[in-house]
Amino acid sequence: MNHAPESFAAFRERIVARSEEKLESFLPPDHAFPARLHEAMRYSVLGGGKRVRPLLVYATGAALGVHESLLDRPAAALEMIHAYSLVHDDLPAMDNDDLRRGRPTCHKAYDEATAILVGDALLTHAFRVLAEPFGVSPTQQLRMVVTLAQAAGSHGMVGGQAVDLAAVGHELAQPALEQMHLLKTGMLIRCAIQLGLAASGVAEESRQGSALIRYADRVGLAFQVQDDILDEIGDIEQTGKAKQGADRERQKPGFVSLLGLKQAQGYARSLLDEALGELETWGKEADHLRALARLIVERNR
Amino acid sequence: MNHAPESFAAFRERIVARSEEKLESFLPPDHAFPARLHEAMRYSVLGGGKRVRPLLVYATGAALGVHESLLDRPAAALEMIHAYSLVHDDLPAMDNDDLRRGRPTCHKAYDEATAILVGDALLTHAFRVLAEPFGVSPTQQLRMVVTLAQAAGSHGMVGGQAVDLAAVGHELAQPALEQMHLLKTGMLIRCAIQLGLAASGVAEESRQGSALIRYADRVGLAFQVQDDILDEIGDIEQTGKAKQGADRERQKPGFVSLLGLKQAQGYARSLLDEALGELETWGKEADHLRALARLIVERNR
Repeated sequence: MNHAPESFAAFRERIVARSEEKLESFLPPDHAFPARLHEAMRYSVLGGGKRVRPLLVYATGAALGVHESLLDRPAAALEMIHAYSLVHDDLPAMDNDDLRRGRPTCHKAYDEATAILVGDALLTHAFRVLAEPFGVSPTQQLRMVVTLAQAAGSHGMVGGQAVDLAAVGHELAQPALEQMHLLKTGMLIRCAIQLGLAASGVAEESRQGSALIRYADRVGLAFQVQDDILDEIGDIEQTGKAKQGADRERQKPGFVSLLGLKQAQGYARSLLDEALGELETWGKEADHLRALARLIVERNR
Repeated sequence: MNHAPESFAAFRERIVARSEEKLESFLPPDHAFPARLHEAMRYSVLGGGKRVRPLLVYATGAALGVHESLLDRPAAALEMIHAYSLVHDDLPAMDNDDLRRGRPTCHKAYDEATAILVGDALLTHAFRVLAEPFGVSPTQQLRMVVTLAQAAGSHGMVGGQAVDLAAVGHELAQPALEQMHLLKTGMLIRCAIQLGLAASGVAEESRQGSALIRYADRVGLAFQVQDDILDEIGDIEQTGKAKQGADRERQKPGFVSLLGLKQAQGYARSLLDEALGELETWGKEADHLRALARLIVERNR
């Protein structure tokens, strides 16, 4: 761990590189049999992505004084879950997207059957990465496995995707929209913080733990509001998405269509303030968490 | 546990009912939000299936003197993995099957997006079921999680499915065909025995452990050979599949097309003999394992 004070820009660059390197080493090599599947898995995980969830894991670890080597597997497992969800979400039967981060989506670069299997394999591999021995106790590791499975399953991310699908073509009131996003994206964001807590041994119910989880939930919602804003106004070259307003065109309910652009921007800002408020009593050990919250709301892609 | 001698027929009936009851209780209730997803998950797991993998877990436990309560979660988790793989395998982009066990497949009874999510949710939930506290040590539990993830992932079942897809329209020589099936179905069958071993604390490398794993691998291969035989000659009402010879028509390589029917039947028989040979030095504690091997080769559906 770095003991000299590290700027957020340096932290971010270092952690993005570290995450990439760890993902690379935890994924099966692309020459391993069956090679095409492994190549497609690596295509879907490596070489892109903002790595927001790993950054949150390491920033939580920094706030709690956890050695970074204890965060590598939780962060990589979480990012594999995120990556699998994008691969399946992009499928023709789901969002039917051709581009992701400016590159062909997995089913476009390979084929649909391969994309289904890539998602399944990444999801499965995430749990293996988390359950193989590393520096935390078996009890802590099991807590991580359960936390990840809860966040990713039918009461979490996958449940949110099901609600999202059912909502296409419907108007959702703000509470229902927020509930859907809490499941669909919020649970994995919260999970990033929970994994950091589990690695540190701090209970979620403790004062520190519950403040961090409230922080996570504000950040998770702000993340989604900003996503909707970028979908409305974002530059195609920056977002890497096929076109602006795509979700609106597909009649997906969102914060911009519900609140209007200006109000949505104000809402993102107030969620950011609430997230920062949860960290008020913390010192500079929480600076990276603060900067991450700002980054998430102020990003332009 | 039953201490009076129990016939295999009684054991089988009892364990199939026990598995159903445990799966029922470990799955989210179908009224839990989001209800349609949970209903579709239960539709895909409950009320059918031969429960071969749970039977193998409990029969292994019986051979090693493991209390059945320690086998409930491993058996249910393994069966959820099996059920998810069928849901995804039946998808239009994969095998495109309309019927499974004589009922509409998940994407037919619901829709394609729901079937993708049902598979994802079942896969995720399996790891949660295995990682929540039950009577074995955390170290044993982690061993189970890793074992299941290895058997189900890109080096196991999902890898086998990828190889199978790539093989459509190709002739495979017997070693390649066996390698594909070892991955696609054999690894989960082996996993059933590995989970029983893990629950008992017996090492896989021990004399007992390695004999059981060789037994599992013979049984797994025999299972697939018999599947191909049934696909060729089976009665639609018994197999619940849309039509006989379906795999052959789709130009999927199989043991019958490779060896001919008579030879394939002889091969299944010799694999059964080999499996039973691995249990030769065992007493009647292994009787259920013996009967299961016979059942797998002599089944007609």
